[in-house]
Amino acid sequence: MHKVNLLAEASKVSELWGRVTPLKFNDYDVHVNRIKGEYVWHTHADTDDVFLVLSGRMIMQLRSGDVELEPGDMFVVPAGVEHCPKADEETVIVCIEPRDTAPAGDPEI
Amino acid sequence: MHKVNLLAEASKVSELWGRVTPLKFNDYDVHVNRIKGEYVWHTHADTDDVFLVLSGRMIMQLRSGDVELEPGDMFVVPAGVEHCPKADEETVIVCIEPRDTAPAGDPEI
Repeated sequence: MHKVNLLAEASKVSELWGRVTPLKFNDYDVHVNRIKGEYVWHTHADTDDVFLVLSGRMIMQLRSGDVELEPGDMFVVPAGVEHCPKADEETVIVCIEPRDTAPAGDPEI
Repeated sequence: MHKVNLLAEASKVSELWGRVTPLKFNDYDVHVNRIKGEYVWHTHADTDDVFLVLSGRMIMQLRSGDVELEPGDMFVVPAGVEHCPKADEETVIVCIEPRDTAPAGDPEI
């Protein structure tokens, strides 16, 4: 049992698109990610995907359009919805996912 | 699919210790709570309990001692651990819990 300052955790992430996992609850992990640039389009078939922006600004690209997220904004990508995070500046986000969820989603078949 | 500014949600909470539930993911709810004063000592036997402070300051009272939480601090109370949130000033927190978790924990038997 220990408290975690989420933003401070970002300093432990050595490279962009890297992450640390400072907390776990039940069968979920809480990840802190440093991002800049564009990730890859992907889908999680079996789980919703939770994002919270701590600093900077993230664009959640969806096939239906972009959603701009600023610090304090939370967004849930429903299971099965294709998405691609992007950030023009360095941005720190929290992702909450079931343990062992592949970051880039399900492999294409 | 909509973004939610967590701190802004607090303005929709009409009374202290009240809450709104602006987001859901899988079988979990994301609650935003306004708190001040002391809650009740309680335990969740079957789930960890996730807290994130957005503004103000929360004291998580545990039988093993107090933990002070400031904005950006996250804390997980493991299942089965008795706890009692307290705030000397008005504080806004996020709680993440499995849907239908009783806020005050399991009834005493």
